Amino acid sequence: MNVVLSRDGQVRAMEATVVSAEKHFGQLCSLLAAHTRKTARLRDVGDRLVKQLIEVAGSEAPDLRVTLREVAEDLAKVQDYRQAQVERLEAKVIGPLKLYGTQIKQTRAEIKRFKQVQSHELKQLERLEKLRQKSPSDRQVISQAENSVQRASVDASRTTRQLEDTVNAFQRQKLKDLQRVFLDFVTIEMLFHAKAVEVYSSACRTLGSYDPEQDLQDFQAKIWGAAGHVKARPLTDAILGPPSGQSTWSIPGSQATQEEASGDDSADEAALEDLRGQEQGRQH
Amino acid sequence: MNVVLSRDGQVRAMEATVVSAEKHFGQLCSLLAAHTRKTARLRDVGDRLVKQLIEVAGSEAPDLRVTLREVAEDLAKVQDYRQAQVERLEAKVIGPLKLYGTQIKQTRAEIKRFKQVQSHELKQLERLEKLRQKSPSDRQVISQAENSVQRASVDASRTTRQLEDTVNAFQRQKLKDLQRVFLDFVTIEMLFHAKAVEVYSSACRTLGSYDPEQDLQDFQAKIWGAAGHVKARPLTDAILGPPSGQSTWSIPGSQATQEEASGDDSADEAALEDLRGQEQGRQH
Repeated sequence: MNVVLSRDGQVRAMEATVVSAEKHFGQLCSLLAAHTRKTARLRDVGDRLVKQLIEVAGSEAPDLRVTLREVAEDLAKVQDYRQAQVERLEAKVIGPLKLYGTQIKQTRAEIKRFKQVQSHELKQLERLEKLRQKSPSDRQVISQAENSVQRASVDASRTTRQLEDTVNAFQRQKLKDLQRVFLDFVTIEMLFHAKAVEVYSSACRTLGSYDPEQDLQDFQAKIWGAAGHVKARPLTDAILGPPSGQSTWSIPGSQATQEEASGDDSADEAALEDLRGQEQGRQH
Repeated sequence: MNVVLSRDGQVRAMEATVVSAEKHFGQLCSLLAAHTRKTARLRDVGDRLVKQLIEVAGSEAPDLRVTLREVAEDLAKVQDYRQAQVERLEAKVIGPLKLYGTQIKQTRAEIKRFKQVQSHELKQLERLEKLRQKSPSDRQVISQAENSVQRASVDASRTTRQLEDTVNAFQRQKLKDLQRVFLDFVTIEMLFHAKAVEVYSSACRTLGSYDPEQDLQDFQAKIWGAAGHVKARPLTDAILGPPSGQSTWSIPGSQATQEEASGDDSADEAALEDLRGQEQGRQH
């Protein structure tokens, strides 16, 4: 009976190995799949950020426009690398881990088959014991039962050896697969991050070399440029005609007003057109 | 009236600048916040992966255990850097963009105030026109209306200058903020990715140097070691006593069976205990 117990212990140990692998690989697979999904979400947000940056760039001053477009291109590159990362994770990490489920099922089927053989052996053994107690003198029946036990036992031995091979191969594969899958995982991640460093360095240089001053002068010229001639001129100059010399016309702080009173209406119209055009450009 | 129209055009251009900035900064803020949130989710999955790896390591063979624990430590470091990345993005990118909303509100309030002053100027102007048509000879009333127009016009001029300053400052700030926020964004990202490359390189080395062979021998010794003495021995040897010399006992391929028949029961028991202990260790 000790041999049966020992075999039973082995089978339970093998089952435990396979069940534990099934559980662990399943959980690792679902977590690595979640990692891949979250990475894909990050890529989606990145894609939207690229679009938004291009839109913002379109309505900004010339230098900033060029700067933001370059940054958007770099961000788009990062998303391309992220897409490659997602595809590689799916092919080299998630895929193999999913396939692993099939292997585990096969090994569990082997174990089940062995258990049936083992159970048959035990039954033959019990039958023999009963016969020995019931009719100890019936040599022919006992000899037949002994033969049955012998055959069942040989079956069990052979199945044990097969199981041994299967579980050894399974364990070897498991160790190698864990190593391979995680080596692929960290390699894929490392390569992505290395590419991202490269691209973000370029974006850093682009943004660092942007100088807002030129754009600011451009903005001021557009908003205040031609319009500046009239901006501080009191309406009264145009409506009421030239100052009549009364003391009330001379207002403290309105010096610029009088200096700029020479602007003519056609220039004002041009400025207005310019502003309208600019405004339409922004809404564009 | 051209001056009024020109001012109106300026105000609309300024409003367009501010409204466009409000819209763009709002959208950038929400996208960068989404990027930060998705990064935080990736960190959460990473944390769960670290825990799972430590659990898996605990039930694996010695060398793989050490390897997986080192990889888990590296993965944990990446999550720490990711946490720092999330905090820095919140402080240096999302925070400033949110504050920007307040600045935009202030500028819009300035523009609203200017519009009121401008509307008052226009009303005074219309009143003067009416009086001139109704009672062109009433010099006193017309003179009073002219004074009102003059005051309103001076008010409008002063407010225009204030608005000019406000919008110039706003635009300068906007250009610098866009540069600053994106420079901070790409710098924070770049630093994170650089750290990640470092850590994943270390994990690559750890995993690359793992050799499953020693662990496999360890596994075989545990499952088949002591138990191996009985595994292929037919049960009949123990139950039926030594072979009786009958030809049926001599089964082809069972040579190992007979060679190993010398294993004793106490050794089997010890192996069984060992296996049970190991099984409990796996469930642990």
